[in-house]
Amino acid sequence: MDPRCEAYADEMKTCGYCAEGEYLAVFGIKICELPASKVYLFKEQSHRGRVIVASKLHVSEITALTDEERNAFFSDVDRVAKAIHRLYKPTKVNYGAYGDTGHHLHFHLVPKYAGDEFEWGGVFAMNPKRTYLESADYDQMVAEIKAQLI
Amino acid sequence: MDPRCEAYADEMKTCGYCAEGEYLAVFGIKICELPASKVYLFKEQSHRGRVIVASKLHVSEITALTDEERNAFFSDVDRVAKAIHRLYKPTKVNYGAYGDTGHHLHFHLVPKYAGDEFEWGGVFAMNPKRTYLESADYDQMVAEIKAQLI
Repeated sequence: MDPRCEAYADEMKTCGYCAEGEYLAVFGIKICELPASKVYLFKEQSHRGRVIVASKLHVSEITALTDEERNAFFSDVDRVAKAIHRLYKPTKVNYGAYGDTGHHLHFHLVPKYAGDEFEWGGVFAMNPKRTYLESADYDQMVAEIKAQLI
Repeated sequence: MDPRCEAYADEMKTCGYCAEGEYLAVFGIKICELPASKVYLFKEQSHRGRVIVASKLHVSEITALTDEERNAFFSDVDRVAKAIHRLYKPTKVNYGAYGDTGHHLHFHLVPKYAGDEFEWGGVFAMNPKRTYLESADYDQMVAEIKAQLI
């Protein structure tokens, strides 16, 4: 285990990004892994194509990364954002990292569409809990995003 | 002018990050410039130490940057976040880029403090418009953050 993660060994057992399984299923579905990150479809899809890019390291913030690790992480973020732009053609992608009470670096990538009034021109809620899809629709999105990334 | 910015030449005349002056004064105070960015104190200080790191390029998103430009930009973001951690000792720094209706890449760096209930554990408002400081207090913050960065 990376020495930066050792203090969080217990916490990692129930971290959605480390343990995945039931802890991930609460909010996301795994799409794939990239060199420095894991990519998840966010189940709440008020903003079509909303995903999470999580570091492979259980560290709190980008400030815990080396220069090389930070470059690799944001290369992945960029790659995912470009895939979302190609697939869903949003007007803008928003990027947000919060996690005040957690310790696993991840960014929400939230596509915004001009003409869609919900949260347009502002920030986005952590989870607005208003739009969930059928299982087959999630499967299709995971497949089409994965096809852009791998 | 960078070719990526040419389409926005008119817009740049009133962009707070390009034109600064009165357009910046609406929300921010300049602290300094770093290799790839300009750093501003956010006048609304509900979260002590809240700042903005804006690209030196008037481009919409990180996806418009080259790998080298993106690495340099996030190196600056990291440097500012570390300065905020050293100075104000927040529990966490949140990072957010929105700008649905603007085209100038910038990240809000928002320190969160355990024990401060306002927006703890969640996202942050674009501008909660609740905490503004006296001029001398802004001057001191600008000076102490600048001293950490330059």
